Amino acid sequence: MDKYVTGIKPINEEAMLAAQSKLDGLVKPPGSLGELETIAIKLSGISGQMHYDTTKRCVIVMASDNGVVEEGVSLAPQSVTYVQTMNFTKGITGVNVLAKQFNADLIVVDVGVNGDTGRPGCMGEQPAKQTTRPMIRNKKIRNATWNIAKQAAMTREEAVEAITVGIDTAIEAANDGYKLIGVGEMGIGNTTTSAAVLCALSDTLPEQATGKGAGLNDEAHRHKIKIIQTALERNKPDQTDPVDVLAKVGGFDIAAMAGVFIGAAYMRMPVVIDGFISIVAALAAARLNPLVKEYMFASHASFEQGYKYAAQILGIKPCLRLNMRLGEGSGCPLMFAIMDAACAIMRDMGTFEQGNISEKYVEDVKDAGFHIGGL
Amino acid sequence: MDKYVTGIKPINEEAMLAAQSKLDGLVKPPGSLGELETIAIKLSGISGQMHYDTTKRCVIVMASDNGVVEEGVSLAPQSVTYVQTMNFTKGITGVNVLAKQFNADLIVVDVGVNGDTGRPGCMGEQPAKQTTRPMIRNKKIRNATWNIAKQAAMTREEAVEAITVGIDTAIEAANDGYKLIGVGEMGIGNTTTSAAVLCALSDTLPEQATGKGAGLNDEAHRHKIKIIQTALERNKPDQTDPVDVLAKVGGFDIAAMAGVFIGAAYMRMPVVIDGFISIVAALAAARLNPLVKEYMFASHASFEQGYKYAAQILGIKPCLRLNMRLGEGSGCPLMFAIMDAACAIMRDMGTFEQGNISEKYVEDVKDAGFHIGGL
Repeated sequence: MDKYVTGIKPINEEAMLAAQSKLDGLVKPPGSLGELETIAIKLSGISGQMHYDTTKRCVIVMASDNGVVEEGVSLAPQSVTYVQTMNFTKGITGVNVLAKQFNADLIVVDVGVNGDTGRPGCMGEQPAKQTTRPMIRNKKIRNATWNIAKQAAMTREEAVEAITVGIDTAIEAANDGYKLIGVGEMGIGNTTTSAAVLCALSDTLPEQATGKGAGLNDEAHRHKIKIIQTALERNKPDQTDPVDVLAKVGGFDIAAMAGVFIGAAYMRMPVVIDGFISIVAALAAARLNPLVKEYMFASHASFEQGYKYAAQILGIKPCLRLNMRLGEGSGCPLMFAIMDAACAIMRDMGTFEQGNISEKYVEDVKDAGFHIGGL
Repeated sequence: MDKYVTGIKPINEEAMLAAQSKLDGLVKPPGSLGELETIAIKLSGISGQMHYDTTKRCVIVMASDNGVVEEGVSLAPQSVTYVQTMNFTKGITGVNVLAKQFNADLIVVDVGVNGDTGRPGCMGEQPAKQTTRPMIRNKKIRNATWNIAKQAAMTREEAVEAITVGIDTAIEAANDGYKLIGVGEMGIGNTTTSAAVLCALSDTLPEQATGKGAGLNDEAHRHKIKIIQTALERNKPDQTDPVDVLAKVGGFDIAAMAGVFIGAAYMRMPVVIDGFISIVAALAAARLNPLVKEYMFASHASFEQGYKYAAQILGIKPCLRLNMRLGEGSGCPLMFAIMDAACAIMRDMGTFEQGNISEKYVEDVKDAGFHIGGL
């Protein structure tokens, strides 16, 4: 893990200046395409090239279970993690549909689902078919974490192992030719662990970090806050040590997702944050090495209220306001479309010169007798 | 005009309830796809059908010049309206690139450009090729409006004529098979006229409605505000009469765009707002008949500061935060992609039943010995 965390390089300032300069010469008021220009510049910084090709992209979904669900913090039974993870293979979930809509592949990794999602090691025998109806990659660490309200979620060694799964998955994706990665999850109870990780990594309070997940009422919401407080008091995670935080109050999913952010940055790949759990994983990754932030793109502002605190701390602004709170990486494909647009602007718009934005041109064209058909 | 303004029907509540019910049965927590669900429901209300096909769509760009530019309210010379309008035919502008990226056609209408954009009446002789490099449709009312700082922009008859151009263009698009319309513009000086129209239609103050357009400095910004105040004082537009407002302090572009919103609603077509000028035209249309609002979708929150006031008054929330301020309808294609996603969710996601979200299923699957390859 350390090799990758410390091996991340800053993005290329020179390429960003060149990109800025090119954008300022396109046939529009400078800066008028706002975030599309910012995205294009950042992609140039990441790649070191003027143009970036976002065509081959994937959403990586880390699936795992959380022991804390025995405290009644979620409406859905734990079994839904397993069922929904299997549903990814059927192509019927939200992220399946959105990934397909925006030509992204889906990579689903079992990093701790409480149920048998496939033969262990099968990925070594038969290479994954990167499709919108993926096989499950078995990287299971354990069948669910322990209950953070009573003890640490996992050992430090397991946290490192989960982070490493994420790093490996991102590196494998890069080696498979992917140029753009989104980071999603499936795990009943993971808004609770994410809120705990956010609080442990920052001065955010449990009542700020804690939303109503997939539909809790007020009483259940208060209970959830209390469980998070208990988890923080009992485990005393070390704010300066992200691995300790992930091990004590996180989950296999969050740790593996943090690893994906690290692996993507190490491979100089743009990586897209989905919702609340994803941005908490991004924050953990940024605490391991702040350079990771230079490779991150926020997609949508999650309806989960903790999102905005994490986004503020990370200093990142999402482009989409859709009040989504599904998870699964479902916001990432929408952001891929925005990033496609940024690349298209850089690639296809004409320059002021091509656009003949000068008085002289207008007179020339008028004098010449303008013919529509000839253009 | 009146026939279309009064002929707009409310959207179908029953179809919306059916859509809501279907969405609540899809394999996700109810409501967790946020605005994607809202959009899908609204499309059902508009069409009266469960599913909507957004595949064939276009951006309609109304181009015209504004007499008020002689007051020095814009950085760019008036000639840029003409040049950039011709650039649409070359496929090199921002909206060309974004329309192409998201498979939208571009329809450009000269409703008052100060220059010869094509043979008058050519559209009658040779049908428009609806492509991303369109011909210009000649519907010119006059070569630019009069200077609103000195007199009304146009006569009331001309305002009705411009609105009618917009209505006709939308109806023709519907008859050509388009299912989704975006509304854009090109016209140097039209952030000034839009601000004036916004103030005239509401209690918004010129200093609230007035942004820095395509790059004004502070002094030029103050001057612009003063010109808008002068235009409002001199012309005394009647807040209760949107046609009077458009005639006195608007432009041919804004009036024609208001007509597109009306024509789209009349034809029961979803219609997408672009930036500041577009939302002011939408507001004017909604003042003619509030039912138009039911057919509208906001795309992005424009960087132009007047946008947020207009959006508040309209009671509409944009999905995209991109700090864009280009105009041309450039935000619409991005929203088309979001709407595509909403349709895909409705069409392609599985139900809870298909997703087997029940305890029994999990046990069954486990007992049966689950085979990945068999799915």
